[in-house]
Amino acid sequence: TTPITATLFPGDGIGPEIAESVKKVFTTAGVPIEWEEHYVGTEIDPRTQSFLTWESLESVRRNKVGLKGPMATPIGKGHRSLNLTLRKELNLYANVRPCYSLPGYKTRYDDVDLITIRENTEGEYSGLEHQVVRGVVESLKIITRQASLRVAEYAFLYAKTHGRERVSAIHKANIMQKTDGLFLKCCREVAEKYPEITYEEVVIDNCCMMLVKNPALFDVLVMPNLYGDIISDLCAGLVGGLGLTPSCNIGEDGVALAEAVHGSAPDIAGKNLANPTALLLSGVMMLRHLKLNEQAEQIHSAIINTIAEGKYRTADLGDASLSSTKLASKPIPDLNL
Amino acid sequence: TTPITATLFPGDGIGPEIAESVKKVFTTAGVPIEWEEHYVGTEIDPRTQSFLTWESLESVRRNKVGLKGPMATPIGKGHRSLNLTLRKELNLYANVRPCYSLPGYKTRYDDVDLITIRENTEGEYSGLEHQVVRGVVESLKIITRQASLRVAEYAFLYAKTHGRERVSAIHKANIMQKTDGLFLKCCREVAEKYPEITYEEVVIDNCCMMLVKNPALFDVLVMPNLYGDIISDLCAGLVGGLGLTPSCNIGEDGVALAEAVHGSAPDIAGKNLANPTALLLSGVMMLRHLKLNEQAEQIHSAIINTIAEGKYRTADLGDASLSSTKLASKPIPDLNL
Ligand SMILES: CC(C)[C@H](C(=O)O)[C@@H](O)C(=O)O
Ligand SMILES: CC(C)[C@H](C(=O)O)[C@@H](O)C(=O)O
Repeated sequence: TTPITATLFPGDGIGPEIAESVKKVFTTAGVPIEWEEHYVGTEIDPRTQSFLTWESLESVRRNKVGLKGPMATPIGKGHRSLNLTLRKELNLYANVRPCYSLPGYKTRYDDVDLITIRENTEGEYSGLEHQVVRGVVESLKIITRQASLRVAEYAFLYAKTHGRERVSAIHKANIMQKTDGLFLKCCREVAEKYPEITYEEVVIDNCCMMLVKNPALFDVLVMPNLYGDIISDLCAGLVGGLGLTPSCNIGEDGVALAEAVHGSAPDIAGKNLANPTALLLSGVMMLRHLKLNEQAEQIHSAIINTIAEGKYRTADLGDASLSSTKLASKPIPDLNL
Repeated sequence: TTPITATLFPGDGIGPEIAESVKKVFTTAGVPIEWEEHYVGTEIDPRTQSFLTWESLESVRRNKVGLKGPMATPIGKGHRSLNLTLRKELNLYANVRPCYSLPGYKTRYDDVDLITIRENTEGEYSGLEHQVVRGVVESLKIITRQASLRVAEYAFLYAKTHGRERVSAIHKANIMQKTDGLFLKCCREVAEKYPEITYEEVVIDNCCMMLVKNPALFDVLVMPNLYGDIISDLCAGLVGGLGLTPSCNIGEDGVALAEAVHGSAPDIAGKNLANPTALLLSGVMMLRHLKLNEQAEQIHSAIINTIAEGKYRTADLGDASLSSTKLASKPIPDLNL
């Protein structure tokens, strides 16, 4: 078979070393991928004199598939997050994060199996802010019909093609009646085309309370940008954190950019301490997207077995005595896109 | 002793019946309070032809202390939430919610002991929204120096006077650099006056992940309006939900309006099924505020013992077999204001 070319952005901090793990594991598993590697990150690359080159973006646009490590977002440094720049430039309109209990890794919650689908381009992330008078500042949240319909379509299609039964739209339309109201209106329109899928609307505060009490109440969750940011991290926390949860960004023109959403952890960078699981699992999502199902399964099982075995564990996972005994009975979750 | 006059807004749905429970319990405990009861809610009161009369507001302003049941917030009905109207009209700038594990009521989390302090007047709750062109709507989030300083002052003073060690400011200033940036700047200014209190800043998504993984990492949390709405519900979920967590709103002119923040549960209203715990505990916060500490302790112990005993349990609490065995060793948490 001819190899598939995929873009790789190792990113900042621990990014390069966990990307190295992915490359090694993929090679070992015989994955027919050739990486096109580009530096995108908060340091100026001495070779290109840039944070982010045109060629990096073109690479994803051409290959339509890629894998991305963490990129640091400096707080208050006045320049825009590179994560956001990629989302905007590549039109990555949906961020999909499966959150499921990892067999072999015990948390307070058993059998979590949720998919969060986040609108990824607008909302509170508009970047439009200004000072009105001294001491009074405002930010604009923008919700559009186009972006809301697009992410709702994706969520329902995802639910349908993955045998999921319920889509919950998360909102705060009791307060933001117009913006979140428009988002809900779009979800309702799409819901009508999928009568076989149960559709419900849940206010974000209530959703968070229900998630920590009983995550089994939810299945697929779809929401505007900021709520997605918050809830996807909350859900990741239920199953062990961002070090264990994969994600993939979906673009309008068929682009899929899988991504580890944890930070760049500069404090442990270069010390061979970083946990590559989230980037590996994101790689598995990428493989499923490419229909390389055999290798995806193989790598996924290897990751889970390694964690369950407990012999090789990064410090963030604590000690192996936490291992769940439920391992044998759990199927490998479907990460198809 | 001369009785203290306090305002009572029983509210909608289950409000009147749980308010009735509070009145009964307070009378039994010999609490020297005379209630000034007013209807505020989503139905037009036939006596006053109004949702909310001037006299109701004046009553709180005059008494400076009150207790409020749930008021329904219709989604998309075009009229403003009465909860918000009260916050605005009475200048209730901080919403304080202690979230602690209730001895005798077991959840996935032991020994939670957090205080969330929410800015209660601005942010995403400005009510300013408009449609720019068809299919494009925007909401304004407003952050002011005045309101941010005010709630930060309250949080640090609360921490200091209650022997709390850490204040965490929750934000998303990596995205909303100007609005949340101003909020953080104000928190930092206030933090400098309290060198004995550890101050930290935590991004909201990360905060939610950490809260579900290990709530013991936090102590007092202070944040803008919407984050407070979300995180206070999440924290309530950790210890059993809004049916078990009290809250109190603090106003600039010394007003304290204690409040059960759960919904009005119209489906079970009038059936004697509602759980009065949150309103009772809010009443206890009110008593502490009034320095009626003896009655506060007495009622608080009675609530906890009743829940622990499991003989009288509302359906929302599930069955008594959940009772924690830790009861005896736990002190009654301090709800002082
Ligand atoms: C780093 C930050 C800008 C980003 C976001 O807020 O979207 C991150 O939290 C994420 O979820 O990818
Ligand atoms: C009912 C609603 C308007 C309210 C809010 O969003 O503030 C509620 O969730 C709360 O926390 O008091």
